[in-house]
Amino acid sequence: MTTNFSSHLLQRAVDEVSCLPGIGRKTALRLVLHLLRQDARVTATLTEALSVLRAEVKYCCMCHNISDTDVCEICSNPKRDSSQLCVVENIQDVMAIESTNLYRGLYHVLGGVISPVDGIGPSNLHIQSLVERVAAGGIEEVILALSPTMEGDTTNYFIYRRLLQLKQSVDSNVKSMEHVHFVMPGITIIARGVAQNDELQHTDEATLGRALAGRIPFSV
Amino acid sequence: MTTNFSSHLLQRAVDEVSCLPGIGRKTALRLVLHLLRQDARVTATLTEALSVLRAEVKYCCMCHNISDTDVCEICSNPKRDSSQLCVVENIQDVMAIESTNLYRGLYHVLGGVISPVDGIGPSNLHIQSLVERVAAGGIEEVILALSPTMEGDTTNYFIYRRLLQLKQSVDSNVKSMEHVHFVMPGITIIARGVAQNDELQHTDEATLGRALAGRIPFSV
Repeated sequence: MTTNFSSHLLQRAVDEVSCLPGIGRKTALRLVLHLLRQDARVTATLTEALSVLRAEVKYCCMCHNISDTDVCEICSNPKRDSSQLCVVENIQDVMAIESTNLYRGLYHVLGGVISPVDGIGPSNLHIQSLVERVAAGGIEEVILALSPTMEGDTTNYFIYRRLLQLKQSVDSNVKSMEHVHFVMPGITIIARGVAQNDELQHTDEATLGRALAGRIPFSV
Repeated sequence: MTTNFSSHLLQRAVDEVSCLPGIGRKTALRLVLHLLRQDARVTATLTEALSVLRAEVKYCCMCHNISDTDVCEICSNPKRDSSQLCVVENIQDVMAIESTNLYRGLYHVLGGVISPVDGIGPSNLHIQSLVERVAAGGIEEVILALSPTMEGDTTNYFIYRRLLQLKQSVDSNVKSMEHVHFVMPGITIIARGVAQNDELQHTDEATLGRALAGRIPFSV
């Protein structure tokens, strides 16, 4: 129904908005007409916020999270436990974990997971910088918190292998001064099982199978 | 999950985007992060299209549709039938009717319907200018194409009364030169009934009742 635009300016705005993921032309038209009904300042504030963000966005040089500064608030916070490093796919995952209020360590944002069908290989992700952070020492635990998908598992395994290689290379150079204090961190992975408050009968077989296989001693 | 932003610029952008109707904070974050992954030109093109539209938007002085010019393409098109005037609520309705390719007349966009609970009275709508267009003569049919809601029906009735008043005022001045050629247009309303391709068993009672009451002789 949105093919007959009475204004080329309107059509152009709708075209641009509907380029956004998950926004169809009907929704785009609704959003643009909403902006037209509002005061002009609403559009000005919106477009300025997007422009400024796009122009001035920075990524933390340590963890690759989005940041206003070169080192993000988490990495530069002395109250955070710098011996723990949680490896996540993207910045939404950082937010999700932060909102649990249960993790006080640092993060490492990969920027994706290995996915050959999407053309994403290890070199497209921040894996090398992860290995370098671990090699620099002081990290006691690397927590793998990627999505429980085939791509996530592949990436977990790739990281595990890279850290193993690091350990072997350190072991063979163990007498050189630079690595004398290096301790290889433990590698852990977040638990997989039935989701909290999910009904068992509605849990998929793969998850339920995994939860059964991964059962732990009951304690109160 | 979206309360822990690592960047104030990001937070501000998400705040602004989530002010749009139907866009929650999760969706806003997804849209903003999409823009960050794209080339900076994508954001520049989007924000410019919105800014230019908001700054330069015009409404047709005849039908109040959005237009790039003072008189819109429909009103200024000599091939359109200027004896028909279709009264609609908003510009999406114009687009919807245009996309049927079954109407060659002109439009009149009210900008809403009478809705006391929303504080929208007749003076907030382009009803006076509709009466003036009809009074100017040359219109043979006014088609009421408002939504089949209580508000739409109220507005239909209000317009009908206003046009009736116009006719009475013209009749009482019928001998004055200015109105000697004035012919009161017929007032029609779009048909209400079961929707094309809808299954009867899933049609609501009000629609079905209306369709039964409004039955017409069958012809092939």
